[in-house]
Amino acid sequence: GNAILSSYGTTIFEVMSRLSDEHKAINLGQGFPDERGPADVLDVAARAILEGWNQYPPMMGTPELRQAVAAHGKRFYGLDIDWKTEVMVTSGATEALTASLLGLINPGDEVVLFQPMYDSYLPIVRLAGGVPRFVSLKAPDWSFTRADLEAVFSPRTKLVLINDPLNPAAKVFTRAELELLAEFVQRFDAFAVCDEVYEHIIFDGLAHIPLMTLPGMRDRCLKIGSAGKTFSLTGWKVGYVTGAAHLLQPVVKAHQYITFTTPPNLQAAVAYGLGKDDAYFTGLATGLQAKRDRLADGLRAVGFEVLPSAGTYFVVADVSPFGFDGNDEDFCRRLTAEAGVTAIPVGAFFVQDAPRSFIRFCFSKRDEILDGAVERIAAYF
Amino acid sequence: GNAILSSYGTTIFEVMSRLSDEHKAINLGQGFPDERGPADVLDVAARAILEGWNQYPPMMGTPELRQAVAAHGKRFYGLDIDWKTEVMVTSGATEALTASLLGLINPGDEVVLFQPMYDSYLPIVRLAGGVPRFVSLKAPDWSFTRADLEAVFSPRTKLVLINDPLNPAAKVFTRAELELLAEFVQRFDAFAVCDEVYEHIIFDGLAHIPLMTLPGMRDRCLKIGSAGKTFSLTGWKVGYVTGAAHLLQPVVKAHQYITFTTPPNLQAAVAYGLGKDDAYFTGLATGLQAKRDRLADGLRAVGFEVLPSAGTYFVVADVSPFGFDGNDEDFCRRLTAEAGVTAIPVGAFFVQDAPRSFIRFCFSKRDEILDGAVERIAAYF
Ligand SMILES: CSCCC(=O)C(=O)O
Ligand SMILES: CSCCC(=O)C(=O)O
Repeated sequence: GNAILSSYGTTIFEVMSRLSDEHKAINLGQGFPDERGPADVLDVAARAILEGWNQYPPMMGTPELRQAVAAHGKRFYGLDIDWKTEVMVTSGATEALTASLLGLINPGDEVVLFQPMYDSYLPIVRLAGGVPRFVSLKAPDWSFTRADLEAVFSPRTKLVLINDPLNPAAKVFTRAELELLAEFVQRFDAFAVCDEVYEHIIFDGLAHIPLMTLPGMRDRCLKIGSAGKTFSLTGWKVGYVTGAAHLLQPVVKAHQYITFTTPPNLQAAVAYGLGKDDAYFTGLATGLQAKRDRLADGLRAVGFEVLPSAGTYFVVADVSPFGFDGNDEDFCRRLTAEAGVTAIPVGAFFVQDAPRSFIRFCFSKRDEILDGAVERIAAYF
Repeated sequence: GNAILSSYGTTIFEVMSRLSDEHKAINLGQGFPDERGPADVLDVAARAILEGWNQYPPMMGTPELRQAVAAHGKRFYGLDIDWKTEVMVTSGATEALTASLLGLINPGDEVVLFQPMYDSYLPIVRLAGGVPRFVSLKAPDWSFTRADLEAVFSPRTKLVLINDPLNPAAKVFTRAELELLAEFVQRFDAFAVCDEVYEHIIFDGLAHIPLMTLPGMRDRCLKIGSAGKTFSLTGWKVGYVTGAAHLLQPVVKAHQYITFTTPPNLQAAVAYGLGKDDAYFTGLATGLQAKRDRLADGLRAVGFEVLPSAGTYFVVADVSPFGFDGNDEDFCRRLTAEAGVTAIPVGAFFVQDAPRSFIRFCFSKRDEILDGAVERIAAYF
């Protein structure tokens, strides 16, 4: 037999980034911004390295960052969070997810997952001994129905894992959808792990609704946030988990054996950043919204069918119009090698019943990069 | 049932550090230096934050750090390492260990562990479905015999996990011991995960011998190193794993779902640091050796029996002379609360047959802190 994790392939993001580099393509694959991040946040980090504490911080995170995460939850969502027992800092949202799943899932527990889903979810659910039950969301609205939930929830359901805003679909779940989900979580006495890393990257005046804020859900949810996404510093790998102490405690146990702690200097800068004024957070969203429009308009002009994008760094395009041969990954490889533009096949986010004509573009890039990508695609087709 | 990791207690290091803070004790428990780390390394990190890349680095680590790790292996141990396929950067040695164990162990595989052992080893072996087989090392020489290995190795042995220099015992394994271990690893076609985070913290002219350098072992070992220990920057959480590509590949798969990457700015500084001149590395050891002697002499003067310390940040003391009641953890709690000095019970590093009269002191502290601890203990007893 193989070790569970080693049976999976290399993550599609790394595969496509490497291919992109090889071909000197414009990389609109892996989701990261190409800007420097807020100068004041960088300054705080540099100062903390030169003048602050560079030894182990407390395992759950520095008090100042845990306080800042709690205050941020209050300010944006009206949540009352006890920073001492209800917030933990992790080495990125990936570790937060892994610690949450390894901390909560007992072998045999059923876990409800929505496809499309981020590619670390299933391997970790399996590592923990969980039994996945899939709900397949379908373009263009990527919604689910009561019947979908009836089909997968059961008395064995331990938790549901939801990503909202949803990568790669660029969907923001509606209050009605979240209420339906909350009803099932409560009916089956389950929990929710809420991957909300794109909570501040949401467009057209929509508001992010943490599942945790719905009636009856406060103590059933772990809410995961990401400094990488919120401050355009994806390399920093600072994440945070918020949730009721009884839910968080087993997650802390997992964290202590996975990374134990996260660099205190970066934590200091993120604590500072979370306190920035509203203009910063709205500016992040409006800046990215303009980039979304720029890329989506450009792709439409060259003949792609572009789906709506309500949040995240991404737009999905339907490539059926392009004499498409039914393999989205091959299409992305060809687009990289021949057109010089890298995208990610949406099929890679599915375990079964993958749609095969969708590809995902990342628009969190400088305008000239976006324009250059559109030009290359136009020249190629 | 409980999730496997959540059934463990809070790590003893965190428990004792919190207790120490509560009592405003001198914390010689958790192993970390209280100095600032090398100023030039800090400068490189601060500059990388202000001027360098803050987005995702390559999953296996930045090329410059992987090259530096390979060059360091050549310079110190004569190892020829292909940085592209044989080096991976992790978010600390704890993640390196976790990724190594989760990547290599298949459910049912037997894993040989030496007691005393670092407290994350067993939970992760169990999480991976491994079956632990223990060798108990005994003070004062903490050695093992051929018969000890005969008793635990079997055709089901997948790997052995060894920490050298050994925390908390402060032992450096001899070439003869390592050769014996290498013989068994080869006889049973097994692998070794070598936690060598204290490779540069070794005293009295002893040389560190990576198990990987023994005949026949080059491609059977994963060697784990730690920038935290090598540069006195334990909060940075930058680790590295070196090993044959076939061994490292499954570990990379685990890493991609655990943290995915490690901050590139800190990687840049560690890459710089690994290239520092020999005086830096010998200075690290001689500086700590003087602190070892200062604390050991002080503890002996107040009546402790202090065991030899050949490496690591630690000395172990036998507290039997102190009308000791047979519970090392209680003794450490009382020492913290009543004498105002925190140590770690060595029994916490054992799963079975724990000795109960040993406690571990960390001496990687400023001289006045070490002197203050000895004074407090003298005043108390
Ligand atoms: C962790 S690499 C992938 C980044 C990302 O979130 C994405 O591209 O979907
Ligand atoms: C990861 S916290 C513990 C630090 C350490 O290595 C020790 O004290 O043994």
